[in-house]
Amino acid sequence: LNESKEAATLGAGSNRLLLVDCPDRSGLIHQITGLLAARGANIINNAEFVDRESGRFFMRTEFSGAESFAGLVEELRMGLPSPANVRLGTAHSRRIVVLATREHHCLGELLLRHAHDELGAEILAVVSNHTVLEALTRRFDLPFHYVPHAGVDREVHEAAIHQVLDKYNPDYLVLAKYMRLLSPAFVSRYPHRMINIHHSFLPAFVGANPYRQAFERGVKIIGATAHFVTETLDAGPIIAQAVVPVDHSYRAEEMAQAGRDVEKIVLAQALKLVLEERVFLNGSRTIVFD
Amino acid sequence: LNESKEAATLGAGSNRLLLVDCPDRSGLIHQITGLLAARGANIINNAEFVDRESGRFFMRTEFSGAESFAGLVEELRMGLPSPANVRLGTAHSRRIVVLATREHHCLGELLLRHAHDELGAEILAVVSNHTVLEALTRRFDLPFHYVPHAGVDREVHEAAIHQVLDKYNPDYLVLAKYMRLLSPAFVSRYPHRMINIHHSFLPAFVGANPYRQAFERGVKIIGATAHFVTETLDAGPIIAQAVVPVDHSYRAEEMAQAGRDVEKIVLAQALKLVLEERVFLNGSRTIVFD
Amino acid sequence: LNESKEAATLGAGSNRLLLVDCPDRSGLIHQITGLLAARGANIINNAEFVDRESGRFFMRTEFSGAESFAGLVEELRMGLPSPANVRLGTAHSRRIVVLATREHHCLGELLLRHAHDELGAEILAVVSNHTVLEALTRRFDLPFHYVPHAGVDREVHEAAIHQVLDKYNPDYLVLAKYMRLLSPAFVSRYPHRMINIHHSFLPAFVGANPYRQAFERGVKIIGATAHFVTETLDAGPIIAQAVVPVDHSYRAEEMAQAGRDVEKIVLAQALKLVLEERVFLNGSRTIVFD
Amino acid sequence: LNESKEAATLGAGSNRLLLVDCPDRSGLIHQITGLLAARGANIINNAEFVDRESGRFFMRTEFSGAESFAGLVEELRMGLPSPANVRLGTAHSRRIVVLATREHHCLGELLLRHAHDELGAEILAVVSNHTVLEALTRRFDLPFHYVPHAGVDREVHEAAIHQVLDKYNPDYLVLAKYMRLLSPAFVSRYPHRMINIHHSFLPAFVGANPYRQAFERGVKIIGATAHFVTETLDAGPIIAQAVVPVDHSYRAEEMAQAGRDVEKIVLAQALKLVLEERVFLNGSRTIVFD
Repeated sequence: LNESKEAATLGAGSNRLLLVDCPDRSGLIHQITGLLAARGANIINNAEFVDRESGRFFMRTEFSGAESFAGLVEELRMGLPSPANVRLGTAHSRRIVVLATREHHCLGELLLRHAHDELGAEILAVVSNHTVLEALTRRFDLPFHYVPHAGVDREVHEAAIHQVLDKYNPDYLVLAKYMRLLSPAFVSRYPHRMINIHHSFLPAFVGANPYRQAFERGVKIIGATAHFVTETLDAGPIIAQAVVPVDHSYRAEEMAQAGRDVEKIVLAQALKLVLEERVFLNGSRTIVFD
Repeated sequence: LNESKEAATLGAGSNRLLLVDCPDRSGLIHQITGLLAARGANIINNAEFVDRESGRFFMRTEFSGAESFAGLVEELRMGLPSPANVRLGTAHSRRIVVLATREHHCLGELLLRHAHDELGAEILAVVSNHTVLEALTRRFDLPFHYVPHAGVDREVHEAAIHQVLDKYNPDYLVLAKYMRLLSPAFVSRYPHRMINIHHSFLPAFVGANPYRQAFERGVKIIGATAHFVTETLDAGPIIAQAVVPVDHSYRAEEMAQAGRDVEKIVLAQALKLVLEERVFLNGSRTIVFD
Repeated sequence: LNESKEAATLGAGSNRLLLVDCPDRSGLIHQITGLLAARGANIINNAEFVDRESGRFFMRTEFSGAESFAGLVEELRMGLPSPANVRLGTAHSRRIVVLATREHHCLGELLLRHAHDELGAEILAVVSNHTVLEALTRRFDLPFHYVPHAGVDREVHEAAIHQVLDKYNPDYLVLAKYMRLLSPAFVSRYPHRMINIHHSFLPAFVGANPYRQAFERGVKIIGATAHFVTETLDAGPIIAQAVVPVDHSYRAEEMAQAGRDVEKIVLAQALKLVLEERVFLNGSRTIVFD
Repeated sequence: LNESKEAATLGAGSNRLLLVDCPDRSGLIHQITGLLAARGANIINNAEFVDRESGRFFMRTEFSGAESFAGLVEELRMGLPSPANVRLGTAHSRRIVVLATREHHCLGELLLRHAHDELGAEILAVVSNHTVLEALTRRFDLPFHYVPHAGVDREVHEAAIHQVLDKYNPDYLVLAKYMRLLSPAFVSRYPHRMINIHHSFLPAFVGANPYRQAFERGVKIIGATAHFVTETLDAGPIIAQAVVPVDHSYRAEEMAQAGRDVEKIVLAQALKLVLEERVFLNGSRTIVFD
């Protein structure tokens, strides 16, 4: 999960990725590896998983080899049980746009990694409904787009965001503490291509000011969950989670700070997993080949 | 948090504990330590905390010294802001009864520690609504009371439990995966003297079979929460929490096993904290001087 | 990593395991899965890893299927690059003997899991150079062999242990805080079939009474390492590690207790991994398909 | 451990800190709190610890109150058992200089927190023996001093560093992956005012390229230790430690990256603890009131 692995998996002219998921049946690994072998591919790394509940097969194959892979995806799609998803991992870096609001911790983490070629993605721009984070973004010489939401209805606001996004055509949107609800219509334009981070507690708290509620309940653990955004708020497939201990001496604001420290690391880790094509969707769950 | 510390704090003829909580005001530490000094006490260890929200002061003092402490508690109660709780920690081991149902992991952990004088408590008996755990209890030469719930209403069942408990008059009840709801009337007889353990997730799941729900949601972390039992189910003040990572390869039953491994350790740790008088109540929260 | 997974992988009449490691070359997965497919095997779960440094390939395949697998191992051995290790996972539970000295925590954990069919192994007997743990062993109705070391030289003592072990012919020896050094000659009789647990610190401490040294250095983390025993003391390939936080309030003995709590869980987890055939050796390192 | 707590403890015109350590004797808390009460101080937060081995008493008191505290330190010094250390925590932010070499992760973390007023310190300048980190430092509009070591002996090099440092007169030096050994003479000019971060392993590895050694040993955990710098390399009193899990799929460079992720968080946390005056020295160990 770092720049070396990334270089290995996504570097131009070096390794490639084959990503397959389809209904399970006997002989799939043999079949798929056979097609690769026939093209002279050398498998560097392979991971499969069969979800016995859904009966679905997942495979991520990293391979090297000089020959052309033209037609491989089509051949696989025809030969595999239906419905099958088959993709060749692209050799170039992913392009992302970051959405944020006021909090700097997640954006700062992404900008630092990006500035030192450790993110595995190109940040094309930062979009925000506030101007607070413009200075931080400018430090890293990246475009910052202020798209205010005040005084406009959600539809108009989201249209304005789309207008910015359309200029960049990003592979992924990263919600780095973007605090506006996005409409199902917006979400549907980036199916499983939006990654969000939010705080998590044991137990969970519904409603406003969850850190205040967590404080009042006296929780001993604060967590963060990175997930794909779906139309259901904060209920998309989970990519990564982590926690930190807290105690009675933490005030609500201190719990929030502890939460921020873990949020930024979990978001960066989840993004890395996604960019390295290690995350498959399996209904409401994920398969993560880490 | 082990037998040595316990011996130090609760051993007869050695150290004593003073436990105070009351509304905060200036000079409390000076006042309380003055009363101890006047009796020749030597403070070994002191912990205080002021909850700024409730304005309440909490203090746990471990001290040694040969003189009598007769009248100390009364003198403190009169001199401190009202309402004050003042107690001297008892020098003898606590006496507990364990309630369990079918799962052996938490009971087994308690029995092992008890058999090797590491629990800090005397287990008087095990009470269960099933017979499954009788063999395990007998291995450790402890009384096992089978109090079936089938075919009787809750009131009758709880009266039968009370009949057993009254024989033992325990200081604490430990619910080591006791899977029956207890009535508010039952709970009210052991105010803040019942400790429970239950699974915890990010996010939380309501309703039947939470591990099944956690599996379907694809959680990456499984946790456990030890808490005091209050009339509100599973919402009593939290004493301790811990988590373990899981991944997509865990089936629901495997998640449950991972949960059991963490439950037993958290329950034993929480019980230790309570037995060493390290846990104060502060409304719906705890202060834990660990 | 629990009884269900175990049942799935080792249950008679159900799934089987194929375990292969050999020098890497192109097409290995295709070749091996082809031989399985030719016998009607259905792959349930597959894990491979290529160590790029050593150029070695590792594969663990869990499969089902009614046909005979006679000749499969031989066919693989002949067809794979040399030197290759090929094994079929046995369908029966592993048989182990536990060696211990005075500390009960690791032995107790193993006995509890064993008594509830969660260990994935049959404990045949406990062997000790002290009598302290006899009572605990007897609670679980298992043979206890006292083989004293006092007054005899190591060779004689080890011969006496062997005499006991030869009666049982165990698959694995588990050193559950066995505190005597074992000679290279002894170790060589159980190549990679002895599992040990020991404390670990950041930084490490050499010499007597490491907890005392850790205390004096003021470490903030206490850990445990489970490893295969090799002729080099405490330097065998690592199977599993875990840590717990400590602080300045822990005395040396309390650090030792914290260490014991983590040791017993790590040992049980490492044993489970080994019993489920998830651990491959790769020189001085392990490959762990967890 | 965040900006709020910091504001509370160090903010001008608000709370003050009293820091005392001296040989233990009966009545110290009473004595010290009495002197505070006599000046109208209201204790907000108090932490004490008695190290039974060394017989030394440590106390950190956070208090508010409008009166003058002139003479308090002197009065305490005279009244306490000798040798005593007594200090009043200063109300202003600490001033630090950061030393770094080539790696950006720790410096970047400090710069980000600093830019958002979360560090609890003012970064006066960055000093480096390479120019690699100049661009990062400039992004945050801070002075960068390149003090090359090539071609000069250590004495000359350190004199050049001192020349820069003397301009700033910092309270603390933070070694954010500064990879040159510093001479005892250098260290002695900043007694317990230099904080370093280094990687840590279970077990530890001596000599060059420790990540390479850790890889070859197949460790499952990578850690980081923040400590005060003393004349003995990497053996100063430990302030904070943390770990992350790794596995066989990590190459040596990937282990290093995992180490970097934990190093930067541990360094920032340790610095916060020191800046908030939560860390006392106790011989080769620390007392950390967190």
